[in-house]
Amino acid sequence: MSNALPGGGTKSQPKAVILLSGGLDSTTILSIAQAEGFECYALSFSYGQRQAVELESAYRVAKAMSVAQHKIAEIDLRMFGGSALTADISVPKGRSSDTMGEGIPVTYVPARNTIFLAYALAWADVIQSNHIFIGVNALDYSGYPDCRPEYIEAFEGMANLATKMGVEGSQRIKIVAPLLHLSKAEIIQQGMLLGVDYTETISCYDPDHRGRACGECDACILRRKGFSDAGVPDPTAYVL
Amino acid sequence: MSNALPGGGTKSQPKAVILLSGGLDSTTILSIAQAEGFECYALSFSYGQRQAVELESAYRVAKAMSVAQHKIAEIDLRMFGGSALTADISVPKGRSSDTMGEGIPVTYVPARNTIFLAYALAWADVIQSNHIFIGVNALDYSGYPDCRPEYIEAFEGMANLATKMGVEGSQRIKIVAPLLHLSKAEIIQQGMLLGVDYTETISCYDPDHRGRACGECDACILRRKGFSDAGVPDPTAYVL
Repeated sequence: MSNALPGGGTKSQPKAVILLSGGLDSTTILSIAQAEGFECYALSFSYGQRQAVELESAYRVAKAMSVAQHKIAEIDLRMFGGSALTADISVPKGRSSDTMGEGIPVTYVPARNTIFLAYALAWADVIQSNHIFIGVNALDYSGYPDCRPEYIEAFEGMANLATKMGVEGSQRIKIVAPLLHLSKAEIIQQGMLLGVDYTETISCYDPDHRGRACGECDACILRRKGFSDAGVPDPTAYVL
Repeated sequence: MSNALPGGGTKSQPKAVILLSGGLDSTTILSIAQAEGFECYALSFSYGQRQAVELESAYRVAKAMSVAQHKIAEIDLRMFGGSALTADISVPKGRSSDTMGEGIPVTYVPARNTIFLAYALAWADVIQSNHIFIGVNALDYSGYPDCRPEYIEAFEGMANLATKMGVEGSQRIKIVAPLLHLSKAEIIQQGMLLGVDYTETISCYDPDHRGRACGECDACILRRKGFSDAGVPDPTAYVL
């Protein structure tokens, strides 16, 4: 390519690192980043999570959406435990979406978003990408400390002091969280406008051995309600 | 124990997570943390570094200094590359300690300290430790962006917004960097006062197959000069 930059991108197409779990939210942000003209580098994590099936979703979504590169980092968060998603603690079922936001849920994985963003920052620093997209959402998951706007802002400030790119680069590093203030229904509506196919995405914290969503955990309840509120048919195969 | 707290520590002994590479600096901070009365949880990383021998040092140091627990996290920073310590880039040799601080060296590992601190934060959040010790030093390694005081301060601010402990806890999380403003000679002098045995520590970026320090890389040159300036015999077996 004639207009190739040292980092491998093109002048007309800046790069972005996208944290892609294979869920509804992260698939939507990938679609948003592509619509904004970014060449997308998708990063997923195998972190000892119960819902390993989400990695298969991430793989299929990355392929279907033709990302520039997709990397899966193997990190073992089970070594610390402390969460229903990585340790032998039960995933809560059948809670109402009105009350699940009270307190920090047991599905909180200690410092997970900080670890995810730190890896994304490492990759961004190597490929010279100034943008990192993360699908956090402050409305539906108000219980997670690392899904709040003030956290994202603090990480961004730190990132600009932490890296070669932040210190030597001409542009500030941006942590982009386009879903921060959207409801699940609004996220789905935005995705539908961008042509996202949600069939391959999975949100469930506790899918069965065939990869079907349980229908009862917080993530399933929020997803179901989101499709219903958005007036969009839910393509998910729920067990219950 | 009668005075056991929920996290497993005792009222009289607060906990600290110590980032322990097995080098001179991190061994000194472990000793400082112990002298300050902390029950120490040592965290090391197998990150695809050239100097894998440093993990053996970390293991021996942790054992000799009787830490409460020692965990080694397997993380593969080679997946991103971009550093002489993790990719196929030569480690610079024979540089003067006066000039090696100019610019960001090729031994800079993208976002390494951010990833290390993120893991430490996860562990701290699980065991309810408010203190994380890191052996960064702004004088000898002024070229690394993530060894500067402003970086450490920004990480600390972010950490307090990121975690269950930061949000719900009664005490602020502190990132303690006791060596930040010390020269290598001052670090060694402080360690000697605390009775540190530097025999087991290794600093070299490029040790030989028998684990002997090369004597020529930046880390060896700074270490040698440190012992010399401190007027302390250097116990290191250098190849050259």
